[in-house]
Amino acid sequence: MTILDQLSLRVPIIQAPMAGVSTPNLAAAVSNAGGLGSIGVGATHASGAAQMIDELRGLTDGAYNVNLFVHAAPQRDAAIEAAWLGALTPLFRELGAEPPSTLATIYKSFADDEDMLGVLVERAPPVVSFHFGLPDEGRVRALKHAGCFLIATATNVEEARAAKASGMDAVVAQGYEAGGHRGVFDPNGEDTRLGTLALTSLLVRFSDLPVIAAGGIMDGRGVRAVLELGAVAAQLGTAFIPCPESAADDAYRQALLSEAAHHTVMTRAISGRPARCLRNRFTEWGATASHSAPEYPVAYDAGKALNAAGKAARESGFGAQWAGQGAPLARELPAADLIRALQRELGEVP
Amino acid sequence: MTILDQLSLRVPIIQAPMAGVSTPNLAAAVSNAGGLGSIGVGATHASGAAQMIDELRGLTDGAYNVNLFVHAAPQRDAAIEAAWLGALTPLFRELGAEPPSTLATIYKSFADDEDMLGVLVERAPPVVSFHFGLPDEGRVRALKHAGCFLIATATNVEEARAAKASGMDAVVAQGYEAGGHRGVFDPNGEDTRLGTLALTSLLVRFSDLPVIAAGGIMDGRGVRAVLELGAVAAQLGTAFIPCPESAADDAYRQALLSEAAHHTVMTRAISGRPARCLRNRFTEWGATASHSAPEYPVAYDAGKALNAAGKAARESGFGAQWAGQGAPLARELPAADLIRALQRELGEVP
Repeated sequence: MTILDQLSLRVPIIQAPMAGVSTPNLAAAVSNAGGLGSIGVGATHASGAAQMIDELRGLTDGAYNVNLFVHAAPQRDAAIEAAWLGALTPLFRELGAEPPSTLATIYKSFADDEDMLGVLVERAPPVVSFHFGLPDEGRVRALKHAGCFLIATATNVEEARAAKASGMDAVVAQGYEAGGHRGVFDPNGEDTRLGTLALTSLLVRFSDLPVIAAGGIMDGRGVRAVLELGAVAAQLGTAFIPCPESAADDAYRQALLSEAAHHTVMTRAISGRPARCLRNRFTEWGATASHSAPEYPVAYDAGKALNAAGKAARESGFGAQWAGQGAPLARELPAADLIRALQRELGEVP
Repeated sequence: MTILDQLSLRVPIIQAPMAGVSTPNLAAAVSNAGGLGSIGVGATHASGAAQMIDELRGLTDGAYNVNLFVHAAPQRDAAIEAAWLGALTPLFRELGAEPPSTLATIYKSFADDEDMLGVLVERAPPVVSFHFGLPDEGRVRALKHAGCFLIATATNVEEARAAKASGMDAVVAQGYEAGGHRGVFDPNGEDTRLGTLALTSLLVRFSDLPVIAAGGIMDGRGVRAVLELGAVAAQLGTAFIPCPESAADDAYRQALLSEAAHHTVMTRAISGRPARCLRNRFTEWGATASHSAPEYPVAYDAGKALNAAGKAARESGFGAQWAGQGAPLARELPAADLIRALQRELGEVP
């Protein structure tokens, strides 16, 4: 039995869980079309996750994936946070706003969230996936006992081997091309920035887990390429952002479908962790910022406030416009049509 | 007629021109086995290039590729150079040596080298390729008139479109995974760091040139993957370094075939231009250096002196140990055997 059988997939494509961009509607459309739809619940609490899962279950009988953030709780540092807010103040003022006076740890890590574990064990999603790290032994055992298929994200061989040792069933090889948050377990450790082609090849050889390739894959050719490398499936995120079912706002969609798509940059300025974003005013500011951002997700509290101030002033350049390096190949199609196009390109139309 | 016919290739594989590592022997072995062997003459003058080409022609009747550096001449800055030598002095002293008192522009760019053009026009290599930029209109015309097939390296769509406009016949899509010097035309401009998968996909779609993919490709699977993306051939460099025909020294070979291969880093410290190297003492020093390196190839004069001092003191950690991100997949085989293995993996054995 292959992983595709285990996940009941007719198409070897996973729609990436993009917290804030993916929706139960998007995930359901993908799952109903034969791929694996995903929702990201890392940016919400247990009851929000329960609501999203329930909504998704109402929209599809297919398999689906629920993604969690498993980051280390941030080390708070009042001096760093004050300096960061001070550095951002001119940007807020330019937008006719004031920065927040203090910042908060806006997301709880799954590592510290017993309520979230309860919701997951009770609803038992067919697939549960993890970003930024691995759940502890007890959580792995509880989720496996509930029947969940478990997937971790790795950016190098060492993280993939840790995923195998922890009991994961598969690993997402997240190449440096990928949009959004880079899954590195330790954002302050060495980052070898492995590209999707190299990383997929290395994890197929060295991880002893089924590999799902991610990063820069936008069409059937890209999917076929990673299958040739030995991946069992491809995970696409940016390709799904222009779908009408996504939660991306108009400015984000327009930027993605313009020449701006040729320019992405890895930045910590928006959230405190490295993430690939369309080059915009926030990333440009971050590239020259003289202060270190507070740790994730504390910096994100400031980043979200700045974007809200920007939107109020009709300035979209402070958004978290995550995008992978394949962004110029994005197509504006409903998710089911996109899956059908990918399937046709894959040469797998029955 | 395809590019493979034009180049008389039986295997869609180009051995990357690696100045200082590739040799006429290596290139001949690859060409005789059905691939395209390459020599890099960017680190030598016209008469040295003539000698290498003549040696290679004596070893093969097959097609071969001669690679040139087409960088902008460095802006010399005495203060920057003195500060750089000052910063390197403790490293030299630790090795029982003294730094050079001055630095030189050790390589002449093909853009400024009439003698080199004369050698190429006279010998008319079947393929001539360019790194760091494009030759001017007169050089392109002269080489095409001599019957040479011309290839440029591009790291983004803009560079590839410039290559097309200049009259190139094909483009190497050099992904961020690739070992050695990154081909960016302007080392101080924006670098979008496109991975091989994303870059190949983008150049196939937007360059209007046949695309040769490079970066992280180490085996038949990697070659098949980039062919699926629409590339006409793959260029492999790191895969050929362990061949007995290469000029790599023992320390370099040993490092490449050890756990060290899992750690590469993009550094300017060795040569003044970004290049991917096995992490070693020089790259670690460079990562924390508080001074800017002189422009390429002036910094390389210091880097080569430091490595010579290191070798004299039996310290190999200051070598230019270029390697791509696929390095852990390197195999120690004679070049002809490696081509046969790749061909077998490609499923193309007749």
